[in-house]
Amino acid sequence: MHRLTLAQSNALIDAALAKGAELQLKPLTVTVHDAGGNLIACQRQDGASNMRVKLAGAKASGALALGVSSRTIGDMALDRPHFIAAVDTMADGGMVPAAGGVIVADADGTIVGAVGVTGDTSDNDEACALAGIAAIGLKPFN
Amino acid sequence: MHRLTLAQSNALIDAALAKGAELQLKPLTVTVHDAGGNLIACQRQDGASNMRVKLAGAKASGALALGVSSRTIGDMALDRPHFIAAVDTMADGGMVPAAGGVIVADADGTIVGAVGVTGDTSDNDEACALAGIAAIGLKPFN
Amino acid sequence: MHRLTLAQSNALIDAALAKGAELQLKPLTVTVHDAGGNLIACQRQDGASNMRVKLAGAKASGALALGVSSRTIGDMALDRPHFIAAVDTMADGGMVPAAGGVIVADADGTIVGAVGVTGDTSDNDEACALAGIAAIGLKPFN
Amino acid sequence: MHRLTLAQSNALIDAALAKGAELQLKPLTVTVHDAGGNLIACQRQDGASNMRVKLAGAKASGALALGVSSRTIGDMALDRPHFIAAVDTMADGGMVPAAGGVIVADADGTIVGAVGVTGDTSDNDEACALAGIAAIGLKPFN
Repeated sequence: MHRLTLAQSNALIDAALAKGAELQLKPLTVTVHDAGGNLIACQRQDGASNMRVKLAGAKASGALALGVSSRTIGDMALDRPHFIAAVDTMADGGMVPAAGGVIVADADGTIVGAVGVTGDTSDNDEACALAGIAAIGLKPFN
Repeated sequence: MHRLTLAQSNALIDAALAKGAELQLKPLTVTVHDAGGNLIACQRQDGASNMRVKLAGAKASGALALGVSSRTIGDMALDRPHFIAAVDTMADGGMVPAAGGVIVADADGTIVGAVGVTGDTSDNDEACALAGIAAIGLKPFN
Repeated sequence: MHRLTLAQSNALIDAALAKGAELQLKPLTVTVHDAGGNLIACQRQDGASNMRVKLAGAKASGALALGVSSRTIGDMALDRPHFIAAVDTMADGGMVPAAGGVIVADADGTIVGAVGVTGDTSDNDEACALAGIAAIGLKPFN
Repeated sequence: MHRLTLAQSNALIDAALAKGAELQLKPLTVTVHDAGGNLIACQRQDGASNMRVKLAGAKASGALALGVSSRTIGDMALDRPHFIAAVDTMADGGMVPAAGGVIVADADGTIVGAVGVTGDTSDNDEACALAGIAAIGLKPFN
Protein backbone atom coordinates (compact mmCIF):
# COMPACT_ATOMS: atom_id res chain seq x y z
CA MET A 1 0.00 0.00 0.00
CA HIS A 2 1.23 3.47 -0.92
CA ARG A 3 1.01 5.26 2.42
CA LEU A 4 2.10 8.27 4.40
CA THR A 5 5.58 7.70 5.84
CA LEU A 6 6.16 7.89 9.56
CA ALA A 7 8.17 11.06 9.02
CA GLN A 8 5.24 12.67 7.17
CA SER A 9 2.83 11.50 9.88
CA ASN A 10 4.90 13.01 12.68
CA ALA A 11 5.26 16.28 10.77
CA LEU A 12 1.50 16.35 10.15
CA ILE A 13 0.81 15.87 13.88
CA ASP A 14 3.30 18.58 14.86
CA ALA A 15 1.64 21.04 12.50
CA ALA A 16 -1.87 20.15 13.67
CA LEU A 17 -0.87 20.65 17.32
CA ALA A 18 0.89 23.91 16.44
CA LYS A 19 -2.38 25.12 14.89
CA GLY A 20 -4.20 24.18 18.08
CA ALA A 21 -1.70 26.14 20.15
CA GLU A 22 -2.02 29.14 17.82
CA LEU A 23 -5.83 29.06 18.18
CA GLN A 24 -5.52 28.43 21.96
CA LEU A 25 -7.71 25.32 21.75
CA LYS A 26 -8.31 22.75 24.47
CA PRO A 27 -5.95 19.74 24.70
CA LEU A 28 -6.02 17.91 21.36
CA THR A 29 -5.47 14.36 20.21
CA VAL A 30 -4.30 13.68 16.66
CA THR A 31 -4.15 10.31 14.89
CA VAL A 32 -2.68 9.49 11.48
CA HIS A 33 -3.69 6.36 9.58
CA ASP A 34 -2.69 4.56 6.41
CA ALA A 35 -5.23 4.17 3.60
CA GLY A 36 -6.37 0.89 5.21
CA GLY A 37 -7.38 2.76 8.37
CA ASN A 38 -4.56 1.36 10.52
CA LEU A 39 -2.79 3.75 12.89
CA ILE A 40 0.66 5.03 11.92
CA ALA A 41 1.14 7.57 14.71
CA CYS A 42 -0.81 9.43 17.37
CA GLN A 43 -0.31 12.00 20.10
CA ARG A 44 -2.70 12.83 22.98
CA GLN A 45 -1.90 16.10 24.74
CA ASP A 46 -1.72 16.38 28.52
CA GLY A 47 -5.22 16.80 29.95
CA ALA A 48 -7.03 15.05 27.08
CA SER A 49 -9.44 12.40 28.37
CA ASN A 50 -9.14 8.61 28.18
CA MET A 51 -11.01 7.77 25.01
CA ARG A 52 -9.58 10.53 22.83
CA VAL A 53 -7.26 8.35 20.71
CA LYS A 54 -10.17 6.04 19.90
CA LEU A 55 -12.39 9.02 19.12
CA ALA A 56 -9.90 10.73 16.82
CA GLY A 57 -9.09 7.40 15.23
CA ALA A 58 -12.75 6.66 14.54
CA LYS A 59 -13.20 10.03 12.85
CA ALA A 60 -10.34 9.14 10.50
CA SER A 61 -11.04 5.44 9.93
CA GLY A 62 -14.77 6.17 9.52
CA ALA A 63 -13.91 8.71 6.83
CA LEU A 64 -11.85 6.10 5.00
CA ALA A 65 -14.62 3.53 5.51
CA LEU A 66 -17.17 5.60 3.59
CA GLY A 67 -14.79 7.61 1.39
CA VAL A 68 -15.88 11.03 2.65
CA SER A 69 -14.84 13.33 5.51
CA SER A 70 -16.35 12.79 8.96
CA ARG A 71 -18.02 16.20 8.49
CA THR A 72 -19.96 14.75 5.57
CA ILE A 73 -20.79 11.67 7.68
CA GLY A 74 -22.17 14.06 10.30
CA ASP A 75 -24.38 15.66 7.62
CA MET A 76 -25.54 12.20 6.52
CA ALA A 77 -26.39 11.40 10.15
CA LEU A 78 -28.68 14.43 10.32
CA ASP A 79 -30.44 13.42 7.09
CA ARG A 80 -30.59 9.66 7.68
CA PRO A 81 -29.81 8.84 11.32
CA HIS A 82 -30.95 5.20 10.92
CA PHE A 83 -28.47 4.67 8.08
CA ILE A 84 -25.45 6.05 9.93
CA ALA A 85 -26.48 4.23 13.13
CA ALA A 86 -26.46 0.96 11.18
CA VAL A 87 -23.12 1.68 9.51
CA ASP A 88 -21.63 2.70 12.85
CA THR A 89 -22.65 -0.62 14.37
CA MET A 90 -21.12 -2.35 11.35
CA ALA A 91 -17.90 -0.39 11.99
CA ASP A 92 -17.94 -1.62 15.59
CA GLY A 93 -17.64 1.92 16.89
CA GLY A 94 -15.01 2.88 14.35
CA MET A 95 -16.94 5.86 13.00
CA VAL A 96 -17.75 9.27 14.43
CA PRO A 97 -20.23 11.53 12.60
CA ALA A 98 -18.58 14.87 13.40
CA ALA A 99 -15.98 17.03 11.65
CA GLY A 100 -12.29 16.41 12.33
CA GLY A 101 -11.64 13.26 10.29
CA VAL A 102 -10.13 14.03 6.87
CA ILE A 103 -8.88 11.71 4.11
CA VAL A 104 -5.43 12.62 2.77
CA ALA A 105 -4.54 12.44 -0.94
CA ASP A 106 -1.34 13.05 -2.86
CA ALA A 107 -0.97 15.32 -5.90
CA ASP A 108 -2.50 12.64 -8.17
CA GLY A 109 -5.57 12.31 -5.97
CA THR A 110 -4.45 8.91 -4.70
CA ILE A 111 -5.56 8.28 -1.12
CA VAL A 112 -2.51 7.83 1.10
CA GLY A 113 -4.13 7.93 4.55
CA ALA A 114 -6.32 9.95 6.88
CA VAL A 115 -6.05 12.17 9.93
CA GLY A 116 -8.36 12.50 12.94
CA VAL A 117 -8.45 15.32 15.48
CA THR A 118 -10.57 15.68 18.63
CA GLY A 119 -10.62 17.86 21.74
CA ASP A 120 -12.17 21.20 20.84
CA THR A 121 -15.25 22.01 18.72
CA SER A 122 -15.60 19.85 15.63
CA ASP A 123 -14.93 22.87 13.41
CA ASN A 124 -11.70 23.66 15.24
CA ASP A 125 -10.66 20.02 15.22
CA GLU A 126 -11.07 19.95 11.45
CA ALA A 127 -9.13 23.21 11.04
CA CYS A 128 -6.18 21.58 12.78
CA ALA A 129 -6.46 18.45 10.64
CA LEU A 130 -6.42 20.57 7.47
CA ALA A 131 -3.45 22.61 8.76
CA GLY A 132 -1.54 19.39 9.34
CA ILE A 133 -2.26 18.08 5.86
CA ALA A 134 -1.29 21.38 4.23
CA ALA A 135 1.95 21.51 6.21
CA ILE A 136 3.26 18.37 4.50
CA GLY A 137 2.18 19.46 1.04
CA LEU A 138 -0.77 17.09 0.62
CA LYS A 139 -4.49 17.69 0.11
CA PRO A 140 -7.79 16.67 1.68
CA PHE A 141 -9.82 14.19 -0.41
CA ASN A 142 -13.56 14.94 -0.67
CA MET B 1 -1.14 5.31 39.38
CA HIS B 2 -2.09 8.06 41.77
CA ARG B 3 -5.63 6.93 42.54
CA LEU B 4 -8.35 6.89 45.13
CA THR B 5 -7.40 4.39 47.83
CA LEU B 6 -9.73 1.53 48.67
CA ALA B 7 -10.37 3.19 52.06
CA GLN B 8 -11.41 6.42 50.33
CA SER B 9 -13.57 4.49 47.88
CA ASN B 10 -15.42 2.63 50.63
CA ALA B 11 -15.96 5.85 52.57
CA LEU B 12 -17.27 7.55 49.43
CA ILE B 13 -19.76 4.72 48.86
CA ASP B 14 -20.93 4.78 52.49
CA ALA B 15 -21.58 8.52 52.29
CA ALA B 16 -23.40 8.22 48.95
CA LEU B 17 -25.67 5.48 50.32
CA ALA B 18 -26.27 7.49 53.50
CA LYS B 19 -27.41 10.39 51.33
CA GLY B 20 -29.78 8.05 49.52
CA ALA B 21 -31.21 6.85 52.84
CA GLU B 22 -31.61 10.44 54.04
CA LEU B 23 -33.51 11.33 50.86
CA GLN B 24 -35.48 8.06 51.05
CA LEU B 25 -34.47 7.10 47.52
CA LYS B 26 -34.99 3.77 45.80
CA PRO B 27 -32.27 1.08 46.12
CA LEU B 28 -29.01 2.51 44.82
CA THR B 29 -25.86 1.11 43.25
CA VAL B 30 -22.57 2.98 43.60
CA THR B 31 -19.31 2.26 41.75
CA VAL B 32 -15.91 3.86 42.29
CA HIS B 33 -13.20 3.76 39.59
CA ASP B 34 -9.57 4.76 39.18
CA ALA B 35 -8.68 7.46 36.65
CA GLY B 36 -8.31 4.79 33.97
CA GLY B 37 -11.94 3.75 34.45
CA ASN B 38 -11.20 0.43 36.21
CA LEU B 39 -13.42 -0.50 39.16
CA ILE B 40 -12.01 -0.12 42.68
CA ALA B 41 -15.17 -0.87 44.66
CA CYS B 42 -18.93 -1.15 44.25
CA GLN B 43 -22.06 -1.83 46.27
CA ARG B 44 -25.53 -2.72 44.95
CA GLN B 45 -28.29 -2.36 47.52
CA ASP B 46 -30.88 -5.06 48.10
CA GLY B 47 -33.66 -4.77 45.54
CA ALA B 48 -31.51 -3.09 42.87
CA SER B 49 -31.84 -4.87 39.52
CA ASN B 50 -29.33 -7.04 37.68
CA MET B 51 -27.54 -4.60 35.42
CA ARG B 52 -27.10 -1.80 37.93
CA VAL B 53 -23.36 -2.21 38.51
CA LYS B 54 -22.74 -2.06 34.77
CA LEU B 55 -25.02 0.95 34.50
CA ALA B 56 -23.41 2.92 37.32
CA GLY B 57 -20.00 1.91 36.04
CA ALA B 58 -20.74 3.14 32.54
CA LYS B 59 -21.84 6.52 33.87
CA ALA B 60 -18.47 6.85 35.60
CA SER B 61 -16.18 5.36 32.94
CA GLY B 62 -18.01 7.26 30.20
CA ALA B 63 -17.40 10.48 32.09
CA LEU B 64 -13.68 9.68 32.25
CA ALA B 65 -13.66 8.70 28.58
CA LEU B 66 -14.84 12.12 27.43
CA GLY B 67 -13.57 14.20 30.34
CA VAL B 68 -16.96 15.59 31.40
CA SER B 69 -19.74 14.45 33.75
CA SER B 70 -22.39 12.05 32.47
CA ARG B 71 -24.86 14.92 32.93
CA THR B 72 -22.95 16.87 30.28
CA ILE B 73 -22.88 13.78 28.06
CA GLY B 74 -26.67 13.65 28.46
CA ASP B 75 -26.88 17.27 27.29
CA MET B 76 -24.64 16.45 24.32
CA ALA B 77 -26.94 13.54 23.46
CA LEU B 78 -29.91 15.90 23.26
CA ASP B 79 -28.02 18.29 20.98
CA ARG B 80 -26.29 15.67 18.81
CA PRO B 81 -27.89 12.25 19.32
CA HIS B 82 -26.04 10.71 16.36
CA PHE B 83 -22.67 11.76 17.82
CA ILE B 84 -23.27 10.28 21.27
CA ALA B 85 -24.81 7.15 19.73
CA ALA B 86 -21.59 6.63 17.78
CA VAL B 87 -19.35 7.27 20.76
CA ASP B 88 -21.45 4.88 22.85
CA THR B 89 -20.97 2.14 20.29
CA MET B 90 -17.23 2.85 20.39
CA ALA B 91 -17.32 2.53 24.19
CA ASP B 92 -19.00 -0.88 23.78
CA GLY B 93 -21.77 0.16 26.15
CA GLY B 94 -19.37 1.83 28.56
CA MET B 95 -21.14 5.18 28.46
CA VAL B 96 -24.51 6.35 29.80
CA PRO B 97 -25.76 9.82 28.82
CA ALA B 98 -27.56 10.66 32.09
CA ALA B 99 -26.54 12.40 35.33
CA GLY B 100 -24.94 10.33 38.08
CA GLY B 101 -21.41 9.82 36.74
CA VAL B 102 -18.94 12.33 38.17
CA ILE B 103 -15.16 12.65 37.74
CA VAL B 104 -13.26 13.09 41.03
CA ALA B 105 -10.29 15.46 41.40
CA ASP B 106 -7.96 16.22 44.27
CA ALA B 107 -7.14 19.69 45.61
CA ASP B 108 -4.71 20.30 42.70
CA GLY B 109 -7.38 19.50 40.13
CA THR B 110 -5.68 16.20 39.23
CA ILE B 111 -8.17 13.50 38.22
CA VAL B 112 -7.96 10.61 40.69
CA GLY B 113 -11.03 8.60 39.70
CA ALA B 114 -14.77 8.72 39.14
CA VAL B 115 -18.00 7.66 40.82
CA GLY B 116 -21.22 6.35 39.28
CA VAL B 117 -24.64 6.14 40.93
CA THR B 118 -27.88 4.67 39.60
CA GLY B 119 -31.27 3.65 40.98
CA ASP B 120 -33.39 6.76 41.46
CA THR B 121 -33.85 9.80 39.19
CA SER B 122 -30.67 10.96 37.50
CA ASP B 123 -30.72 14.17 39.53
CA ASN B 124 -30.96 12.24 42.79
CA ASP B 125 -28.29 9.79 41.64
CA GLU B 126 -25.94 12.70 41.01
CA ALA B 127 -26.75 14.30 44.37
CA CYS B 128 -25.60 11.10 46.06
CA ALA B 129 -22.42 10.97 43.96
CA LEU B 130 -21.60 14.55 44.92
CA ALA B 131 -22.34 13.85 48.60
CA GLY B 132 -19.94 10.92 48.49
CA ILE B 133 -17.17 12.98 46.90
CA ALA B 134 -17.62 15.82 49.39
CA ALA B 135 -17.55 13.39 52.32
CA ILE B 136 -13.95 12.40 51.54
CA GLY B 137 -12.80 15.96 51.00
CA LEU B 138 -12.44 15.82 47.22
CA LYS B 139 -14.11 17.72 44.39
CA PRO B 140 -16.03 17.03 41.20
CA PHE B 141 -14.09 17.77 37.98
CA ASN B 142 -16.06 19.62 35.26
CA MET C 1 -34.11 -14.31 43.15
CA HIS C 2 -33.08 -15.40 46.62
CA ARG C 3 -29.67 -13.80 46.95
CA LEU C 4 -26.97 -12.70 49.32
CA THR C 5 -27.84 -9.36 50.90
CA LEU C 6 -25.51 -6.41 50.51
CA ALA C 7 -24.76 -6.62 54.25
CA GLN C 8 -23.75 -10.28 53.86
CA SER C 9 -21.67 -9.45 50.80
CA ASN C 10 -19.76 -6.69 52.57
CA ALA C 11 -19.15 -8.93 55.58
CA LEU C 12 -17.92 -11.71 53.30
CA ILE C 13 -15.46 -9.34 51.61
CA ASP C 14 -14.20 -8.00 54.96
CA ALA C 15 -13.53 -11.54 56.16
CA ALA C 16 -11.82 -12.57 52.93
CA LEU C 17 -9.52 -9.54 53.07
CA ALA C 18 -8.82 -10.18 56.77
CA LYS C 19 -7.73 -13.69 55.83
CA GLY C 20 -5.42 -12.25 53.20
CA ALA C 21 -3.90 -9.90 55.75
CA GLU C 22 -3.45 -12.76 58.22
CA LEU C 23 -1.65 -14.82 55.54
CA GLN C 24 0.33 -11.75 54.41
CA LEU C 25 -0.80 -12.18 50.81
CA LYS C 26 -0.32 -9.78 47.92
CA PRO C 27 -3.03 -7.13 47.29
CA LEU C 28 -6.34 -8.93 46.75
CA THR C 29 -9.53 -8.22 44.87
CA VAL C 30 -12.80 -9.78 46.01
CA THR C 31 -16.12 -9.80 44.14
CA VAL C 32 -19.50 -11.06 45.34
CA HIS C 33 -22.28 -11.97 42.91
CA ASP C 34 -25.92 -13.01 43.05
CA ALA C 35 -26.93 -16.44 41.76
CA GLY C 36 -27.40 -14.91 38.30
CA GLY C 37 -23.75 -13.89 38.21
CA ASN C 38 -24.37 -10.16 38.57
CA LEU C 39 -22.07 -8.17 40.85
CA ILE C 40 -23.39 -7.17 44.29
CA ALA C 41 -20.17 -5.75 45.73
CA CYS C 42 -16.43 -5.68 45.12
CA GLN C 43 -13.25 -4.29 46.64
CA ARG C 44 -9.82 -4.00 44.95
CA GLN C 45 -6.97 -3.37 47.38
CA ASP C 46 -4.38 -0.67 46.78
CA GLY C 47 -1.70 -1.95 44.42
CA ALA C 48 -3.92 -4.53 42.68
CA SER C 49 -3.66 -4.20 38.89
CA ASN C 50 -6.26 -2.88 36.44
CA MET C 51 -8.10 -6.02 35.37
CA ARG C 52 -8.44 -7.61 38.81
CA VAL C 53 -12.16 -6.94 39.29
CA LYS C 54 -12.88 -8.54 35.93
CA LEU C 55 -10.63 -11.46 36.76
CA ALA C 56 -12.15 -12.16 40.18
CA GLY C 57 -15.60 -11.65 38.71
CA ALA C 58 -14.96 -14.15 35.94
CA LYS C 59 -13.80 -16.77 38.42
CA ALA C 60 -17.12 -16.38 40.25
CA SER C 61 -19.48 -15.97 37.30
CA GLY C 62 -17.74 -18.80 35.45
CA ALA C 63 -18.29 -21.04 38.46
CA LEU C 64 -21.99 -20.19 38.40
CA ALA C 65 -22.08 -20.66 34.64
CA LEU C 66 -20.97 -24.31 34.86
CA GLY C 67 -22.20 -25.08 38.39
CA VAL C 68 -18.78 -26.00 39.80
CA SER C 69 -15.94 -24.10 41.42
CA SER C 70 -13.34 -22.40 39.24
CA ARG C 71 -10.85 -24.92 40.67
CA THR C 72 -12.85 -27.70 39.03
CA ILE C 73 -12.99 -25.68 35.81
CA GLY C 74 -9.19 -25.50 35.98
CA ASP C 75 -9.05 -29.29 36.28
CA MET C 76 -11.41 -29.63 33.32
CA ALA C 77 -9.13 -27.30 31.33
CA LEU C 78 -6.18 -29.61 31.92
CA ASP C 79 -8.19 -32.66 30.79
CA ARG C 80 -10.05 -31.06 27.91
CA PRO C 81 -8.48 -27.71 26.97
CA HIS C 82 -10.48 -27.47 23.72
CA PHE C 83 -13.76 -27.76 25.66
CA ILE C 84 -12.97 -25.05 28.19
CA ALA C 85 -11.53 -22.81 25.47
CA ALA C 86 -14.84 -23.08 23.61
CA VAL C 87 -16.93 -22.45 26.72
CA ASP C 88 -14.73 -19.50 27.63
CA THR C 89 -15.33 -17.94 24.24
CA MET C 90 -19.05 -18.55 24.74
CA ALA C 91 -18.79 -16.77 28.11
CA ASP C 92 -17.15 -13.81 26.32
CA GLY C 93 -14.26 -13.90 28.76
CA GLY C 94 -16.46 -14.40 31.78
CA MET C 95 -14.71 -17.56 32.94
CA VAL C 96 -11.29 -18.19 34.49
CA PRO C 97 -10.06 -21.78 34.89
CA ALA C 98 -8.16 -21.33 38.18
CA ALA C 99 -9.08 -21.70 41.85
CA GLY C 100 -10.59 -18.71 43.67
CA GLY C 101 -14.16 -18.72 42.36
CA VAL C 102 -16.59 -20.45 44.71
CA ILE C 103 -20.38 -20.88 44.56
CA VAL C 104 -22.18 -20.00 47.82
CA ALA C 105 -25.12 -22.03 49.17
CA ASP C 106 -27.35 -21.63 52.19
CA ALA C 107 -28.12 -24.33 54.77
CA ASP C 108 -30.63 -25.99 52.39
CA GLY C 109 -28.09 -26.20 49.60
CA THR C 110 -29.82 -23.45 47.61
CA ILE C 111 -27.37 -21.40 45.59
CA VAL C 112 -27.47 -17.77 46.75
CA GLY C 113 -24.45 -16.36 44.95
CA ALA C 114 -20.73 -16.72 44.35
CA VAL C 115 -17.46 -15.13 45.38
CA GLY C 116 -14.27 -14.54 43.37
CA VAL C 117 -10.81 -13.74 44.70
CA THR C 118 -7.60 -12.92 42.81
CA GLY C 119 -4.17 -11.49 43.59
CA ASP C 120 -2.05 -14.22 45.13
CA THR C 121 -1.65 -17.90 44.18
CA SER C 122 -4.89 -19.59 43.17
CA ASP C 123 -4.77 -21.76 46.28
CA ASN C 124 -4.44 -18.73 48.54
CA ASP C 125 -7.14 -16.88 46.64
CA GLU C 126 -9.50 -19.78 47.23
CA ALA C 127 -8.59 -19.97 50.93
CA CYS C 128 -9.69 -16.36 51.31
CA ALA C 129 -12.93 -17.00 49.41
CA LEU C 130 -13.72 -19.94 51.70
CA ALA C 131 -12.88 -17.89 54.80
CA GLY C 132 -15.29 -15.21 53.66
CA ILE C 133 -18.10 -17.69 53.06
CA ALA C 134 -17.55 -19.36 56.43
CA ALA C 135 -17.54 -15.99 58.20
CA ILE C 136 -21.15 -15.33 57.23
CA GLY C 137 -22.31 -18.83 58.12
CA LEU C 138 -22.80 -20.16 54.60
CA LYS C 139 -21.21 -23.03 52.67
CA PRO C 140 -19.38 -23.60 49.40
CA PHE C 141 -21.44 -25.49 46.77
CA ASN C 142 -19.52 -28.22 44.89
CA MET D 1 -4.30 11.12 36.66
CA HIS D 2 -0.61 11.29 37.42
CA ARG D 3 0.70 10.03 34.11
CA LEU D 4 3.54 10.21 31.66
CA THR D 5 3.38 13.55 29.86
CA LEU D 6 3.17 13.68 26.09
CA ALA D 7 6.69 15.13 26.02
CA GLN D 8 7.99 12.16 28.04
CA SER D 9 6.09 9.74 25.83
CA ASN D 10 7.54 11.18 22.63
CA ALA D 11 11.04 11.13 24.09
CA LEU D 12 10.58 7.52 25.17
CA ILE D 13 9.49 6.53 21.65
CA ASP D 14 12.43 8.38 20.05
CA ALA D 15 14.88 6.56 22.33
CA ALA D 16 13.27 3.18 21.71
CA LEU D 17 13.43 3.67 17.94
CA ALA D 18 17.04 4.88 18.21
CA LYS D 19 17.88 1.65 20.03
CA GLY D 20 16.23 -0.31 17.24
CA ALA D 21 18.31 1.55 14.65
CA GLU D 22 21.48 0.96 16.64
CA LEU D 23 20.73 -2.78 16.78
CA GLN D 24 19.67 -2.77 13.11
CA LEU D 25 16.31 -4.31 13.94
CA LYS D 26 13.35 -4.75 11.64
CA PRO D 27 10.74 -1.93 11.46
CA LEU D 28 9.38 -1.31 14.95
CA THR D 29 6.15 -0.01 16.41
CA VAL D 30 6.14 1.64 19.83
CA THR D 31 3.10 2.59 21.92
CA VAL D 32 2.99 4.53 25.19
CA HIS D 33 0.01 4.33 27.56
CA ASP D 34 -1.19 5.95 30.76
CA ALA D 35 -1.57 3.79 33.87
CA GLY D 36 -5.15 3.02 32.87
CA GLY D 37 -3.95 1.47 29.62
CA ASN D 38 -5.15 4.28 27.34
CA LEU D 39 -2.83 5.32 24.48
CA ILE D 40 -0.87 8.55 24.83
CA ALA D 41 1.34 8.26 21.74
CA CYS D 42 2.48 5.75 19.15
CA GLN D 43 4.72 5.48 16.12
CA ARG D 44 4.76 2.69 13.51
CA GLN D 45 7.85 2.68 11.31
CA ASP D 46 7.68 2.39 7.53
CA GLY D 47 7.33 -1.25 6.54
CA ALA D 48 5.68 -2.36 9.79
CA SER D 49 2.51 -4.34 9.10
CA ASN D 50 -1.12 -3.36 9.69
CA MET D 51 -1.86 -4.69 13.14
CA ARG D 52 1.36 -3.57 14.81
CA VAL D 53 -0.10 -0.71 16.86
CA LYS D 54 -2.75 -3.04 18.27
CA LEU D 55 -0.11 -5.66 18.97
CA ALA D 56 2.30 -3.33 20.76
CA GLY D 57 -0.62 -1.77 22.60
CA ALA D 58 -1.86 -5.14 23.83
CA LYS D 59 1.58 -6.01 25.17
CA ALA D 60 1.49 -2.82 27.22
CA SER D 61 -2.15 -2.78 28.31
CA GLY D 62 -2.02 -6.50 29.12
CA ALA D 63 0.97 -5.86 31.37
CA LEU D 64 -1.00 -3.17 33.21
CA ALA D 65 -4.06 -5.44 33.40
CA LEU D 66 -2.19 -8.13 35.32
CA GLY D 67 0.50 -5.97 36.95
CA VAL D 68 3.50 -7.79 35.43
CA SER D 69 5.53 -7.46 32.22
CA SER D 70 4.30 -9.19 29.07
CA ARG D 71 7.44 -11.37 29.34
CA THR D 72 6.09 -12.72 32.63
CA ILE D 73 2.68 -13.22 31.03
CA GLY D 74 4.45 -15.23 28.34
CA ASP D 75 6.02 -17.42 31.04
CA MET D 76 2.60 -17.87 32.65
CA ALA D 77 1.20 -18.92 29.27
CA LEU D 78 3.79 -21.69 29.01
CA ASP D 79 2.94 -22.94 32.51
CA ARG D 80 -0.82 -22.55 32.33
CA PRO D 81 -1.93 -22.00 28.72
CA HIS D 82 -5.61 -22.44 29.55
CA PHE D 83 -5.43 -19.67 32.18
CA ILE D 84 -3.81 -17.09 29.92
CA ALA D 85 -6.12 -18.08 27.04
CA ALA D 86 -9.10 -17.31 29.29
CA VAL D 87 -7.66 -14.01 30.48
CA ASP D 88 -6.88 -13.02 26.91
CA THR D 89 -10.48 -13.65 25.90
CA MET D 90 -11.54 -11.49 28.85
CA ALA D 91 -9.20 -8.75 27.66
CA ASP D 92 -10.88 -8.91 24.24
CA GLY D 93 -7.51 -9.30 22.56
CA GLY D 94 -5.87 -6.67 24.74
CA MET D 95 -3.12 -8.94 25.98
CA VAL D 96 -0.09 -10.49 24.26
CA PRO D 97 1.94 -13.13 26.11
CA ALA D 98 5.38 -12.19 24.74
CA ALA D 99 8.17 -9.88 25.88
CA GLY D 100 8.04 -6.22 24.81
CA GLY D 101 5.34 -4.81 27.10
CA VAL D 102 6.80 -3.11 30.17
CA ILE D 103 5.10 -1.18 33.01
CA VAL D 104 6.75 2.19 33.79
CA ALA D 105 7.19 3.48 37.34
CA ASP D 106 8.58 6.70 38.73
CA ALA D 107 11.26 7.00 41.42
CA ASP D 108 8.69 6.22 44.16
CA GLY D 109 7.61 3.02 42.45
CA THR D 110 4.25 4.54 41.45
CA ILE D 111 2.99 3.21 38.12
CA VAL D 112 2.76 6.06 35.62
CA GLY D 113 2.16 4.13 32.39
CA ALA D 114 3.44 1.38 30.13
CA VAL D 115 5.25 0.91 26.85
CA GLY D 116 4.80 -1.72 24.16
CA VAL D 117 7.21 -2.59 21.34
CA THR D 118 6.78 -5.04 18.48
CA GLY D 119 8.51 -5.82 15.17
CA ASP D 120 11.64 -7.84 15.88
CA THR D 121 12.21 -10.76 18.27
CA SER D 122 10.47 -10.39 21.61
CA ASP D 123 13.82 -10.05 23.37
CA ASN D 124 14.88 -7.23 21.06
CA ASP D 125 11.49 -5.58 21.34
CA GLU D 126 11.86 -5.56 25.12
CA ALA D 127 15.41 -4.20 24.92
CA CYS D 128 14.07 -1.22 23.00
CA ALA D 129 11.25 -0.69 25.51
CA LEU D 130 13.76 -0.69 28.37
CA ALA D 131 16.06 1.69 26.50
CA GLY D 132 13.16 4.08 26.03
CA ILE D 133 12.22 3.97 29.71
CA ALA D 134 15.82 4.51 30.82
CA ALA D 135 16.22 7.44 28.44
CA ILE D 136 13.57 9.45 30.30
CA GLY D 137 14.92 8.58 33.73
CA LEU D 138 12.18 6.17 34.78
CA LYS D 139 12.21 2.48 35.71
CA PRO D 140 10.47 -0.75 34.71
CA PHE D 141 7.96 -2.08 37.26
CA ASN D 142 8.14 -5.85 37.94
